[in-house]
Amino acid sequence: MGKTNLDLIRECDNFPYHEDNRAAYTETLNNYHAFRVNGFDATLGYILNSVVEKFPWPKSYWVIDSGAKTVTLNTPADATPEYRSKLVAESISEAVKADVFEVLRGWRNENYPVWGPGGQLILDMERCASPLFGIVSYGAHMTCYVQDEAGFKFWIPRRAKNKQTYPSMLDNTVAGGMCTNEKPFECIVREAMEEASLPESSIRSAIRPVGCVTYSHIRDARAGGETGLSQPEVEYVYDLKLEPKVIPKPGDNEVEEFNLLTVQEVQDALARGEFKPNCSVVIIDFFVRHGLLTPENDPDYLDILSRLHRRLEYPLASHC
Amino acid sequence: MGKTNLDLIRECDNFPYHEDNRAAYTETLNNYHAFRVNGFDATLGYILNSVVEKFPWPKSYWVIDSGAKTVTLNTPADATPEYRSKLVAESISEAVKADVFEVLRGWRNENYPVWGPGGQLILDMERCASPLFGIVSYGAHMTCYVQDEAGFKFWIPRRAKNKQTYPSMLDNTVAGGMCTNEKPFECIVREAMEEASLPESSIRSAIRPVGCVTYSHIRDARAGGETGLSQPEVEYVYDLKLEPKVIPKPGDNEVEEFNLLTVQEVQDALARGEFKPNCSVVIIDFFVRHGLLTPENDPDYLDILSRLHRRLEYPLASHC
Repeated sequence: MGKTNLDLIRECDNFPYHEDNRAAYTETLNNYHAFRVNGFDATLGYILNSVVEKFPWPKSYWVIDSGAKTVTLNTPADATPEYRSKLVAESISEAVKADVFEVLRGWRNENYPVWGPGGQLILDMERCASPLFGIVSYGAHMTCYVQDEAGFKFWIPRRAKNKQTYPSMLDNTVAGGMCTNEKPFECIVREAMEEASLPESSIRSAIRPVGCVTYSHIRDARAGGETGLSQPEVEYVYDLKLEPKVIPKPGDNEVEEFNLLTVQEVQDALARGEFKPNCSVVIIDFFVRHGLLTPENDPDYLDILSRLHRRLEYPLASHC
Repeated sequence: MGKTNLDLIRECDNFPYHEDNRAAYTETLNNYHAFRVNGFDATLGYILNSVVEKFPWPKSYWVIDSGAKTVTLNTPADATPEYRSKLVAESISEAVKADVFEVLRGWRNENYPVWGPGGQLILDMERCASPLFGIVSYGAHMTCYVQDEAGFKFWIPRRAKNKQTYPSMLDNTVAGGMCTNEKPFECIVREAMEEASLPESSIRSAIRPVGCVTYSHIRDARAGGETGLSQPEVEYVYDLKLEPKVIPKPGDNEVEEFNLLTVQEVQDALARGEFKPNCSVVIIDFFVRHGLLTPENDPDYLDILSRLHRRLEYPLASHC
C-alpha cells in the first residue's frame, strides 16, 4: 500500500495543529524557544532547545529567557536591518568557528530574509543558518509540462547524488530558494535558466504564477544535519506549458537528469515516496488545479486543500 | 478607496482566528452553543445563544447544557441517519409552527447533510434551518469565461431583485448548494443547466474541477433573516472556458441577466462591493490560479491564499 496524497502532505506539513491536538501541539512547541527581535511584537521562528543550549550566543546583544522560552536579539528598537543582520552574521560566524552545528557546514553564501509585521524586512541571515533559527523560508517552484490529447506529461528531474539535502530524490522541474530582495517571479526565471537551461526569451511571458503552498515542516534526517529543526516555508508556485520540442537540460550540478513522466508514472513515484517532500506538495497542488485530483477521487480532498495552504503563525513577506 | 482583495475575503471569512486574537475568538465563541449528536466526539456546528433560547427543543431527545454550552441530539449511539433526521425535522417543524425564526420562512424543500468524523453521514436537515444549527454547508461554484488575445472575459450574472438572500448582487456564473447524496461535479452540471441554460452534452467534458474555497462566515443582514448565525462553508470550485458563441441565459428566476465583463470591470465591481461575499472569494481564487493576482501585485497575497482555504474545525464531507 503506497502513500496517499494526504500522507505526503503530512510528511511535509508535520508540525502539529493546535485545533487537532492541543497536547501534541503544546508538547512540540515545548521543544523550542521563540526567536524574537527587540522592537517587534512577533515570534519570527522557533529555535530547537538543543540549539539554544549549544549556540555560542554573544551576551552583549542576545537575551535568553529560559522561563519564557525566548531568544531575543536585543538591538535598539530603531536599529537598521543592516545592523541587526551584521550582529546575527557575527553570531553565526562564532557558531561556525566552534563547529557545533552540522547544518552550518553547508555554507551557501546566500542570505535569507526575516520579515516582520506589516511586510517590513527586519534582518537577513546566511541560508544554511535559517533552520537553526526556525525562520520562514521562501522559494519558488515550477512544474513544466506538455499536454496533448493523451493528457499531461511532466518534466521531472532527479536530484544529484551528492546534494547535501534529499540526494537522488525526484524534484519539481525548477525550484529554488529566494534570497533577500529577490521577487518570486524573477527568482523562478533565474532558476529556470540556471537549473533547466530554459531560454529566458521564450519562457518569461509563458510562465504563469498560480498560487503558493505553505506548510510547517520539522526536518528529518533526509534534510541533512540536525533533525527536529523547525522550517516553516512558503513556496510560490508556477506552471509552464512547454512545446514538445523544448527539452529541459541540467544547467548546473544540482540535477542528474530530466525525464518526461506520465500522470500515472508521477502518481506511482509519489506513492513510493520518491519525491522530495515539499515537491510532492507542489505536484499535488498542480493535480488539484488541473482537475486530476478531485473531490470524487480522493477521500481527503478537503483536508488536502487546507493543508496545502497552512496559515503560518509568523509575520510574512510582502513583495509589492 | 475601494475594498482590497483581503477586505473582501475578511467579509466572507469573518469568524475570528484563534491564532490572531485569542480574546476575540473566545468572545465570539461565547455567543454560541456547540451542536453535538450523541455518539460522535465532534462539534458539528455552532448555534447562536439567542437561537438556543428561542428554539422549542423537544425535551425527549434534546439535551441543553448551559454550563458546557452544548445542545446535544440525544439519540442512541447506534441510531440511523434516517432516525436522527426525522427527529431533527420534527423539531424544525415545531419551530416553523411557532414562527420564531425569520430564516425558517424561506423554506427550500432541499436537505443539507451533516457529516461526522471519517466522512460518515450523521443526519440531514432542511436547508433553510442549517444556519440555525451552524453546520457546514456545501456548494459548487463555477466561473465561465472566454479568453482571447485581449485576455479574459467573465460571464457574470446579477441576482434577481426578489431573491431572499443577497438580492441584486453580482454572482458567479453558476452556483448552487449541494443536497444530501449529491456529488460536487453532478451538482455543478445540474446547476449549469438550470441556472445558465448551458447544454449538458457540450459542458460535461469541458468543466474542470480546480479546487475549493473554505471559510467561516457569520451572517449579516444581507443574507436575510437573523444576523450573527454561524455559516461555515465549503464551495467546490470549477472553471469552464466557453467559446465566444456560447451565451449563458437565465434558466430560472434566480438570475436577472448575464453580462460579459473584462478583468478590469470585474475588479472594479469587486472593489465597490457589488459581488455576493462568497462569490468575491471564488473570483479571487480564479485570479490567483490564472496569474491575474500575483505576489507582486497584491501585498496581502500570502494571507489571501491561506484564507481562501481556511481549515474548518468540524468533520467534513467525503465524496468518494
